[in-house]
Amino acid sequence: MTPVVYVLNGPNLNLLGKRQPEIYGAQTLGDVEELCRSTAARLGLTAECRQSNAEHELIDWIQEAREKAAAIVINPAAYSHTSVAILDALNACDFPVIEVHISNIHKREEFRQHSYVSSRANAVIAGCGVQGYELALTHAAALVRAG
Amino acid sequence: MTPVVYVLNGPNLNLLGKRQPEIYGAQTLGDVEELCRSTAARLGLTAECRQSNAEHELIDWIQEAREKAAAIVINPAAYSHTSVAILDALNACDFPVIEVHISNIHKREEFRQHSYVSSRANAVIAGCGVQGYELALTHAAALVRAG
Amino acid sequence: MTPVVYVLNGPNLNLLGKRQPEIYGAQTLGDVEELCRSTAARLGLTAECRQSNAEHELIDWIQEAREKAAAIVINPAAYSHTSVAILDALNACDFPVIEVHISNIHKREEFRQHSYVSSRANAVIAGCGVQGYELALTHAAALVRAG
Amino acid sequence: MTPVVYVLNGPNLNLLGKRQPEIYGAQTLGDVEELCRSTAARLGLTAECRQSNAEHELIDWIQEAREKAAAIVINPAAYSHTSVAILDALNACDFPVIEVHISNIHKREEFRQHSYVSSRANAVIAGCGVQGYELALTHAAALVRAG
Amino acid sequence: MTPVVYVLNGPNLNLLGKRQPEIYGAQTLGDVEELCRSTAARLGLTAECRQSNAEHELIDWIQEAREKAAAIVINPAAYSHTSVAILDALNACDFPVIEVHISNIHKREEFRQHSYVSSRANAVIAGCGVQGYELALTHAAALVRAG
Amino acid sequence: MTPVVYVLNGPNLNLLGKRQPEIYGAQTLGDVEELCRSTAARLGLTAECRQSNAEHELIDWIQEAREKAAAIVINPAAYSHTSVAILDALNACDFPVIEVHISNIHKREEFRQHSYVSSRANAVIAGCGVQGYELALTHAAALVRAG
Amino acid sequence: MTPVVYVLNGPNLNLLGKRQPEIYGAQTLGDVEELCRSTAARLGLTAECRQSNAEHELIDWIQEAREKAAAIVINPAAYSHTSVAILDALNACDFPVIEVHISNIHKREEFRQHSYVSSRANAVIAGCGVQGYELALTHAAALVRAG
Amino acid sequence: MTPVVYVLNGPNLNLLGKRQPEIYGAQTLGDVEELCRSTAARLGLTAECRQSNAEHELIDWIQEAREKAAAIVINPAAYSHTSVAILDALNACDFPVIEVHISNIHKREEFRQHSYVSSRANAVIAGCGVQGYELALTHAAALVRAG
Amino acid sequence: MTPVVYVLNGPNLNLLGKRQPEIYGAQTLGDVEELCRSTAARLGLTAECRQSNAEHELIDWIQEAREKAAAIVINPAAYSHTSVAILDALNACDFPVIEVHISNIHKREEFRQHSYVSSRANAVIAGCGVQGYELALTHAAALVRAG
Amino acid sequence: MTPVVYVLNGPNLNLLGKRQPEIYGAQTLGDVEELCRSTAARLGLTAECRQSNAEHELIDWIQEAREKAAAIVINPAAYSHTSVAILDALNACDFPVIEVHISNIHKREEFRQHSYVSSRANAVIAGCGVQGYELALTHAAALVRAG
Amino acid sequence: MTPVVYVLNGPNLNLLGKRQPEIYGAQTLGDVEELCRSTAARLGLTAECRQSNAEHELIDWIQEAREKAAAIVINPAAYSHTSVAILDALNACDFPVIEVHISNIHKREEFRQHSYVSSRANAVIAGCGVQGYELALTHAAALVRAG
Amino acid sequence: MTPVVYVLNGPNLNLLGKRQPEIYGAQTLGDVEELCRSTAARLGLTAECRQSNAEHELIDWIQEAREKAAAIVINPAAYSHTSVAILDALNACDFPVIEVHISNIHKREEFRQHSYVSSRANAVIAGCGVQGYELALTHAAALVRAG
Repeated sequence: MTPVVYVLNGPNLNLLGKRQPEIYGAQTLGDVEELCRSTAARLGLTAECRQSNAEHELIDWIQEAREKAAAIVINPAAYSHTSVAILDALNACDFPVIEVHISNIHKREEFRQHSYVSSRANAVIAGCGVQGYELALTHAAALVRAG
Repeated sequence: MTPVVYVLNGPNLNLLGKRQPEIYGAQTLGDVEELCRSTAARLGLTAECRQSNAEHELIDWIQEAREKAAAIVINPAAYSHTSVAILDALNACDFPVIEVHISNIHKREEFRQHSYVSSRANAVIAGCGVQGYELALTHAAALVRAG
Repeated sequence: MTPVVYVLNGPNLNLLGKRQPEIYGAQTLGDVEELCRSTAARLGLTAECRQSNAEHELIDWIQEAREKAAAIVINPAAYSHTSVAILDALNACDFPVIEVHISNIHKREEFRQHSYVSSRANAVIAGCGVQGYELALTHAAALVRAG
Repeated sequence: MTPVVYVLNGPNLNLLGKRQPEIYGAQTLGDVEELCRSTAARLGLTAECRQSNAEHELIDWIQEAREKAAAIVINPAAYSHTSVAILDALNACDFPVIEVHISNIHKREEFRQHSYVSSRANAVIAGCGVQGYELALTHAAALVRAG
Repeated sequence: MTPVVYVLNGPNLNLLGKRQPEIYGAQTLGDVEELCRSTAARLGLTAECRQSNAEHELIDWIQEAREKAAAIVINPAAYSHTSVAILDALNACDFPVIEVHISNIHKREEFRQHSYVSSRANAVIAGCGVQGYELALTHAAALVRAG
Repeated sequence: MTPVVYVLNGPNLNLLGKRQPEIYGAQTLGDVEELCRSTAARLGLTAECRQSNAEHELIDWIQEAREKAAAIVINPAAYSHTSVAILDALNACDFPVIEVHISNIHKREEFRQHSYVSSRANAVIAGCGVQGYELALTHAAALVRAG
Repeated sequence: MTPVVYVLNGPNLNLLGKRQPEIYGAQTLGDVEELCRSTAARLGLTAECRQSNAEHELIDWIQEAREKAAAIVINPAAYSHTSVAILDALNACDFPVIEVHISNIHKREEFRQHSYVSSRANAVIAGCGVQGYELALTHAAALVRAG
Repeated sequence: MTPVVYVLNGPNLNLLGKRQPEIYGAQTLGDVEELCRSTAARLGLTAECRQSNAEHELIDWIQEAREKAAAIVINPAAYSHTSVAILDALNACDFPVIEVHISNIHKREEFRQHSYVSSRANAVIAGCGVQGYELALTHAAALVRAG
Repeated sequence: MTPVVYVLNGPNLNLLGKRQPEIYGAQTLGDVEELCRSTAARLGLTAECRQSNAEHELIDWIQEAREKAAAIVINPAAYSHTSVAILDALNACDFPVIEVHISNIHKREEFRQHSYVSSRANAVIAGCGVQGYELALTHAAALVRAG
Repeated sequence: MTPVVYVLNGPNLNLLGKRQPEIYGAQTLGDVEELCRSTAARLGLTAECRQSNAEHELIDWIQEAREKAAAIVINPAAYSHTSVAILDALNACDFPVIEVHISNIHKREEFRQHSYVSSRANAVIAGCGVQGYELALTHAAALVRAG
Repeated sequence: MTPVVYVLNGPNLNLLGKRQPEIYGAQTLGDVEELCRSTAARLGLTAECRQSNAEHELIDWIQEAREKAAAIVINPAAYSHTSVAILDALNACDFPVIEVHISNIHKREEFRQHSYVSSRANAVIAGCGVQGYELALTHAAALVRAG
Repeated sequence: MTPVVYVLNGPNLNLLGKRQPEIYGAQTLGDVEELCRSTAARLGLTAECRQSNAEHELIDWIQEAREKAAAIVINPAAYSHTSVAILDALNACDFPVIEVHISNIHKREEFRQHSYVSSRANAVIAGCGVQGYELALTHAAALVRAG
């Protein structure tokens, strides 16, 4: 059975391609999830893609991943900056966590430059646009293979 | 068809009139929503009134408003001070947003004096009590008419 | 006799309509004062309108209002951010004080985001443009009527 | 009828005994709730135990407690540090609130050392492990008896 | 021989029951020490109770406790906030240390919200009034029994 | 019997006239105490003068003054800036407290510009040199007479 | 000819006795000036008393005092906290400057706890009420006599 | 007609040459204005020189310059550090503004190291003494010529 | 001709594989450069690899790249946190810049969590180990192809 | 022999006229050096012009100037904000130092608004464009003539 | 007569060799004092060694040293970070003061990285273990010899 | 073969004895190096002395020392406060590092009071003048002997 990677997207990412395309690009969440599934397949993984605007749903999925997944790729969006609860949920996982941001958050408002999740993530990829998910899965695959 | 204005109330405002009346006054959420509906009607608008204690539900409604509304009047209550996610959802809207606070938050604890939403709102009205909703709708109507 | 509301405008507002119209709009101080007088009349009030670039003149007028007025609507402009003396003068008044800013100061430079006057004002209205004066008078009328 | 104390546990506490036992100990949430129920019984109280990963569900339960409970014992977990909304819900209660933390938060990361809830709580008990719930109920009982 | 717990009270606690009863309650230091002795006896411990206004005397007693005690229950009062020397003395102990504050220090002046001792204490109990000593001894007993 | 005023001097003031005369002047502690006694006599008061380098001795004397004195004039010297315990002792007094500093502490190093005692003192006199004691006793006499 | 001391009072002190008597007492500016004149006469000085709400008028008077006075007693009121220009004017004087505040500013809002003038004043007297002027003149007389 | 440059000097600069010559040099305001007039003439400009201790008078003159001048050379003195109102007046001008400080403010007290005016000025010249006015006019002439 | 990407490594990276392998891994700089060259070749690029401990040499190479390269992949190492000069050199380039850190700098000392270069970089990849260079080149190739 | 003034330019200024002309203008370093040489000649000075991207080379030249020059005009560029070593080298010089910035650094990013060099420089000229060098040499000449 | 050097050790140093040997080493206070006495003898000095947990006793000894000693070597331990009173006592001495810390305080908690005493000490030696006392005496001897 | 200690001196120390002798003393770098060589010989060590104004040269020498030396004595001068790169190079060494400052940096400007190197150094010696090198070598010898 191929290892599963949870690809979790946080609040407002369901609007991808519809809001502020000068920041987030023209591709939709569907496009991103399709890209993740095909990339994962190419790397010998299965991508389980989910999106929610609710902090608690993301927590539930991270807890679920503890049982079912080999890694998490997560774009926590706005919750990166405010959610200790998501950080705590990730702290309870012992597999690789890769954090992705579509835009380079270091070039935006000051409050977007700190992420609680970064203090737990194995790696952080910011500003590569939608390609960041592909790169994150590539790194996740390497870590999963390395055991 | 009359333009619709979403009037969104955040956490604990369902207790209006029941908790800390020396701060928030004696009127209930029902009174406020009735006031909003009649004010809106007088101004040629339709007020769609909602309240939730859940951050994600407010986000969903803001996203819904992108399709259906001409403006948002929002009292984000406690989420004003902590929610980047609500700010992001409002950033995805291109119509007027008016922020209302029943009390004058500038006279209260320091952590209540900063609102993420203010950096997006077209206007902020604080400390006018329940009448603040009426004033906000008046300004929203002016902006909607101005296109 | 109808109650009198002092409408006080601070430094550089005599340039209204002439400077930075993208921030402050196209209407002049004369327009604003005319709007205040007609709004007040409609609400059963008399508006006494004054403008000065001098901090001490605003203080003198606030002290004068203690004898003659039922409320103050004030746009302290730049002095909002620097004048403890105006705050002290307002602290010596026991009638309603409504603070108005034409622009949404929370979206501007950081030093414009703190107002000494807000810690005394009954209510704060920011970013409604020139209509802010109308809304402020509406709220002032409600407070005066409520005694 | 015996007085009811709501015992509320916040996000990720459903993982108790499963994650980071070096910090949180080996007992599960079930053990804790059983301990609370038996302690309460011994003290002449009824413990109503609930856990949620959702901020809004905790708010709803606190509001519900306003009608049904004589006190709240709450471990807000990660929401201690980020939720003004839970603080506001507790501010709307006029019975005793006891805050519990299993670990001594003062010995952990800086962002865990500030709790919004502490500014409302009657008492705070941190670092007593699972026994903290027992101590909290003991103090709650004293306050309830004292009326 | 029953294990000994040092119960140390810091400056001004000799005035207990005499100063600011709205903060510290009506019971005297004698009452508190009596409560500690009887509670300890009930738990199979001996309470050795001391109070001093002198920082160095507290340090001497902590050093003495290293030879004679199984645990320390300490209310460092004002020295909580200023004494690195007491912290250092406690750092030289390898048995449980429980910190007690009669009032909820998190609701008081900002300088009372930081305690050097908390970074060493196994547990912190604040705001339970005089009952806090009883709860602290209860937890100390559990830790002593657990070895 | 004439009312008694405790005149308390803190650490290193026994060196007065011997150290750094460019800051503290040429008069000795003996001179200051003589000045206090004669000034007090002239004002119908008895000055009880004490000096200690020990924080706890000052606390003991303040507690003693609660029984015997009508006011305290205190120059806490270096302890002004570091002692919450002296502040607490003064908080337990309900008669006038006048704080004196020989030099103008506002013109010295930053850490000398904050005094815990100032938040309790009825009045603060700084920079009047040794005459500051005379002025403080004058004000204390007025407060004692006023009851 | 007796030496002249300028007694300068800043903004809103013309309201003395009329505003916030719980802070500033019941005596009027006239009372204060009469007290200053009689105290000065008793000390062999002439008090020249002035009050203004205008920062520049205070600056002009300080500059005038450079030619005509032997000392300044000044209560800069709100300008204490905001005026570098008054500080600069005082820096241009080489005679004694005594700063007076009727209330103990160290017990009030944080922004009232810093005074630019204190960094220039020879002495600062705060919280002695109206008697503070008398004490300040006493100290000024001592400094003038000392040359 | 030759272009006019307003040369505005702020508070206490009328004392130039009389106060603190070790900082500000020996030349008087009259000398400076004469230097400005002759330098301007040499550069084909007319210098209109004014000085005031009053913030509002400087604002009035800046507003007047909007109608009559091609550039402003301003030494705002103490108001550099405290006046948002002067900044606002300058923001309403669309011609070159050159800020001059006689001393190098970066070597003085921290509060003198920030100038509101610098965020509007085209150029800032500090520490060149009185020659700074000459250099400022030279640069102003270049900008006026460049249109 | 294939486009050239400059791969620049900053101070101490010549020790790669030799120092702190628990942070930086076991591969040497030679391995990394070989990886970069082969990855680049696979992507249709030429990798020009350089390392220096000297800030100015990195600046010189960045300036050289303006003439010869289509993109820069840079690991500025310690200079990330201190060099405004490297930032300025990169600001003078108008092609893609990808910043790489072998370790996740967000989990290390606070001073390593801010990078001047991030405010210019198109994307930032941290914590992927040596694979980060491969991912960076992948993203650079995409940007170069996209023109 | 005419006195020599070292004109030192820091990192990236060799790109002058080539990078970001909207900030730094269209003139090249060659133009600037030519301007400096001709200005110096007109003032009876010899300008020795150098540029380096290396911090240590600038230090070496400043040390060399101690033997050979009568003054330094320096634009430290990015090193203004980060180099204590250049400040130290300048501190070892006892002749005039004039700091020049082509742009008005007070209008740019916050980290560009502090210059270590300003705390040593006799004068600072910012925002006059390339003409700033001419003005700096004019002031240097005055200081050199004044001895 | 040989010059006397007071070697003063602060709180908890009587536990040397008994507490936290991984930080403070295995040697006892007796060993240290013996080392000091023999080192002093070798250098032609007499070492007067004292230790106290009491701040005031250290102050008394420093004052005593003013009469009897030629230098002080002091390890203020925890009081380094909190005692302005010890700093003041040392400020009253005009002979050399050498501060010693056994551990390198710059590698420990942030509050241990600031020492009031360092602002008075002639020299500071940290992290040399017990040998630090020997080095401090060596430097003290040099200063005493140099007069 | 005797163990080698690298004695590295940072920027501007080549001016020793020539600049600011009131801070750095009258001895030259040659004197210091001679002192180091003779001290080392006496201790059974060989001192390899180097000085550079270039950050990268110091880094290169530290890397070289990894192969050839048993310890480093380093006075990083201005780079202490700004160079993370030198810290990183030292972090790659596993032998003793002793940091020396000629002056007591804790008594100088605030930015000189933090040293990156101190967080790596085994010991720090500041303010002993040139003798500090001798003391540092003494401690280095002890550590080298202790292995």
